[in-house]
Amino acid sequence: MSAGRLIGVGVGPGDPELMTLKAVRALNDADVVAFFAKAGNTSHARTIAAQHLRAGVVELPLLYPVTTELPSCSDAYRATICTFYDTAAAQIAAQIAAGRVVAVLSEGDPLFYGSYMHIHARLAPRVATEIIAGVTGMSGCWSVAGTPIAQGDDVFTVLPATLPEAELARRLGDADAAVVMKVGRHLPKLRRALERSGRLPRAIYVERGTMADAKMIPLTAKPNDEAPYFAVVLVPGWKERP
Amino acid sequence: MSAGRLIGVGVGPGDPELMTLKAVRALNDADVVAFFAKAGNTSHARTIAAQHLRAGVVELPLLYPVTTELPSCSDAYRATICTFYDTAAAQIAAQIAAGRVVAVLSEGDPLFYGSYMHIHARLAPRVATEIIAGVTGMSGCWSVAGTPIAQGDDVFTVLPATLPEAELARRLGDADAAVVMKVGRHLPKLRRALERSGRLPRAIYVERGTMADAKMIPLTAKPNDEAPYFAVVLVPGWKERP
Repeated sequence: MSAGRLIGVGVGPGDPELMTLKAVRALNDADVVAFFAKAGNTSHARTIAAQHLRAGVVELPLLYPVTTELPSCSDAYRATICTFYDTAAAQIAAQIAAGRVVAVLSEGDPLFYGSYMHIHARLAPRVATEIIAGVTGMSGCWSVAGTPIAQGDDVFTVLPATLPEAELARRLGDADAAVVMKVGRHLPKLRRALERSGRLPRAIYVERGTMADAKMIPLTAKPNDEAPYFAVVLVPGWKERP
Repeated sequence: MSAGRLIGVGVGPGDPELMTLKAVRALNDADVVAFFAKAGNTSHARTIAAQHLRAGVVELPLLYPVTTELPSCSDAYRATICTFYDTAAAQIAAQIAAGRVVAVLSEGDPLFYGSYMHIHARLAPRVATEIIAGVTGMSGCWSVAGTPIAQGDDVFTVLPATLPEAELARRLGDADAAVVMKVGRHLPKLRRALERSGRLPRAIYVERGTMADAKMIPLTAKPNDEAPYFAVVLVPGWKERP
């Protein structure tokens, strides 16, 4: 029974070929494959990994509770999501206690803004745990765009577009290179912040970065009409190219 | 002759199993495999990829000129290194012009602080180019350490330890999570900056992050004796765990 353990498996940014050899092997060895999804939706991570799941492997979907009607900073939201992660971790812990190897799929890299971290924080103190690093979503984006992002002594920053405009502008102006996540409805504010910080001319708007239908254009060519939540904006650094 | 092209291949942080399926396929398809190395040294990227090089593939080592006696910000250094990259790019361009597919190995991710970028910047405007994203060295480090690095709306920053102490302290205090690179002889200064910014208690020192002999300890347990150039310090974020 001591063989049970938890593996956080990074499946990369979207292209199934950007999975690592180690991730493929882990999925082949796992007794149980767990993944997060919204109720009624397919899991993006599971879609990426689909061709490497063993026939007959036990699948354990972890379905987010419907909480879109609650503001994400409210106490009610935090309590609901916390209970959800507690329950998910308990389900996984039960499988591990029964001697099974449980692989938890994670888009991108498991410990970089990944949902897997919520399971890891709850279980790593008490079960054997392994992390398989993955290619991040942002690496996928700048690679498909063919845009060198940072070099040498560049300061590189990842920012959520949820920050207030003045703070976005200050932080953009303070970094050589940046990636702004969670653009969505914050696009008009982000555009103003990029303009104030002098970074607008080199900003690149990326939608569905590593999907077959990826869209990437200079932000100056993108209207403020609409942007999906997962759109990102790249601000390449590396100004002093030798 | 039109089939010639350039592929920037990320080989990941060190563990050969952290290469992607796409990188392995690219190496199998390449006519020429190029890699950077210091004269007299083996290439770390080539070592990582070794088992996936085709028997008989043409290898093109790109040997850095010996420039350690020149300060890295001097005009002489810049001229020397610039000429080196120009020459390397010309060698690769000649292979591509002859109809060959040239894979340039890159540790980590090609467009994230990678030497490949110098080739890319010179050739991408005039030859067909593909980038294969890789797992970054820093993802390799925090994964082996089992340390969640950033979550939710965390601001994440990558800093070179070469910055002045006051600037390091300011930037460390301004980010939720950080990775400090190029630690080496800057360790005592970095430690003071971490202390000034209140980040010392959660700083983790990582040496040879994804090698079999990796060393990772709380920075408070690491003496100021010596640190290799490629040592990194992780400052995990994600303070508000639900």
